[in-house]
Amino acid sequence: MSNTPTTQTRIADSFGSQGLMKTLGASLVFVGEGEVHIAMPFSLALSQQQGFVHAGAVTSIVDSACGYAALTTAPAEFDVVTAEFKINFMRPALGTRFVAVGKVQSAGKLLSVCTGEVRAFTDGATAYKVVAMMQATVVNVRRAG
Amino acid sequence: MSNTPTTQTRIADSFGSQGLMKTLGASLVFVGEGEVHIAMPFSLALSQQQGFVHAGAVTSIVDSACGYAALTTAPAEFDVVTAEFKINFMRPALGTRFVAVGKVQSAGKLLSVCTGEVRAFTDGATAYKVVAMMQATVVNVRRAG
Amino acid sequence: MSNTPTTQTRIADSFGSQGLMKTLGASLVFVGEGEVHIAMPFSLALSQQQGFVHAGAVTSIVDSACGYAALTTAPAEFDVVTAEFKINFMRPALGTRFVAVGKVQSAGKLLSVCTGEVRAFTDGATAYKVVAMMQATVVNVRRAG
Amino acid sequence: MSNTPTTQTRIADSFGSQGLMKTLGASLVFVGEGEVHIAMPFSLALSQQQGFVHAGAVTSIVDSACGYAALTTAPAEFDVVTAEFKINFMRPALGTRFVAVGKVQSAGKLLSVCTGEVRAFTDGATAYKVVAMMQATVVNVRRAG
Repeated sequence: MSNTPTTQTRIADSFGSQGLMKTLGASLVFVGEGEVHIAMPFSLALSQQQGFVHAGAVTSIVDSACGYAALTTAPAEFDVVTAEFKINFMRPALGTRFVAVGKVQSAGKLLSVCTGEVRAFTDGATAYKVVAMMQATVVNVRRAG
Repeated sequence: MSNTPTTQTRIADSFGSQGLMKTLGASLVFVGEGEVHIAMPFSLALSQQQGFVHAGAVTSIVDSACGYAALTTAPAEFDVVTAEFKINFMRPALGTRFVAVGKVQSAGKLLSVCTGEVRAFTDGATAYKVVAMMQATVVNVRRAG
Repeated sequence: MSNTPTTQTRIADSFGSQGLMKTLGASLVFVGEGEVHIAMPFSLALSQQQGFVHAGAVTSIVDSACGYAALTTAPAEFDVVTAEFKINFMRPALGTRFVAVGKVQSAGKLLSVCTGEVRAFTDGATAYKVVAMMQATVVNVRRAG
Repeated sequence: MSNTPTTQTRIADSFGSQGLMKTLGASLVFVGEGEVHIAMPFSLALSQQQGFVHAGAVTSIVDSACGYAALTTAPAEFDVVTAEFKINFMRPALGTRFVAVGKVQSAGKLLSVCTGEVRAFTDGATAYKVVAMMQATVVNVRRAG
């Protein structure tokens, strides 16, 4: 699917129907050709035992960002499914807001390879720290119906 | 840390202080030497766009299960942090209840390697399907204080 | 493809045509349904800077073992290609002989997930140490011709 | 270790003592601060069953490139060991010459995260295709002696 207004709408609709994204307080903030950003404010509801954001929440938003990035470059009649990913956590997820950036690195007929990162921002600062890096494999699956 | 009642208590306390586990509705169901299980019932609050459980929720519980498994074999004065993991999603996370099983495969002084899987159960059935498999690297870090 | 004599022959022929396996001194030692073993004796030609076997040689044999394991369970008209893998190195590859064991964990129509490990043996001992663990995604691709 | 002439020499010496790099016909072509390149010409001695370069050979050079990249940013008294990596193979390794590029993305006291790619070149052309992408975790280990 090319990155038309239709793609934008389709991704926004899909994102809106993800219960987990709502539960995590995440929002879709950018959809471009081969690149999608998802933001998530800090909340104690997302914490691990030391009060930082749990690796699972960090992972959830960057997984979705990679999947939707892959959808922007998938053929029109296909949906995408994450086959697998690998993620490194470089530092504690400390911040007031997190932005996951997913990018398509290689878009094949069947499989896409995406990379993602999660950036931690602190209120009032423009700089960010990358807290996690992902490399993911996404499968194109023909849409039913 | 050996798998003494103290370890059990320490893990239960740590788990209880994870905001994300509460948000996901997850509970700690087994702590053994080198093995930890975490359960999570299905909820629409955890869904992806097709109504299955989101890969991020599946990942969150098996990441925690692997981390706590590593803690059962870590030296007493150490905490653990997930450095990275890789996870494959073999089928849609369809079921009424999910159990993540994390196991230590190799416990080094500095790094442990764990494997994990997430099992999907359906009410009334005893069989399960493995929906995801993880391989994780966990770091021992000396406790502050 | 089911694990018939034909599969055995097909895998032996394919293995025999891999220049790298010959270069590494590797041999195919077991082909079963969903499981393949490849052996490689120690050689200085495979070393890293400290004289142990290089992670790349260890990886090469377990990648091939996983790929061939996936081939034993792939439909008859399909070949397999490794899409990606993740590998942990738990200890130095010290030994006189290494055996890579690849196993199919989940065989889908399109993708298989395999796990592998590399065992280090020392002459005269029957015990071994696992020096590396792999989790791999293998794609079924329709054979040309 | 900072990227002084000493680092350059140390990496060249280490590379020269890797039996596997010689066996694969690989050479060290660039050492910069946080970035190392390793080249390898095509040879049938490196092939898989279809005549392309085997994923294991591709992986070996990019693993070494990532490890040496990490060494350029490690503290002076430390060596490095690859703890684990993940690699995607995006297309067949077809070409006359391959260059693995390893880069440090995050250099911690204990662990570094590196990314790598393998570029396939064809004689007479200046363009290249990326055939594989790696994300690796490298550990700093204090040098003995």
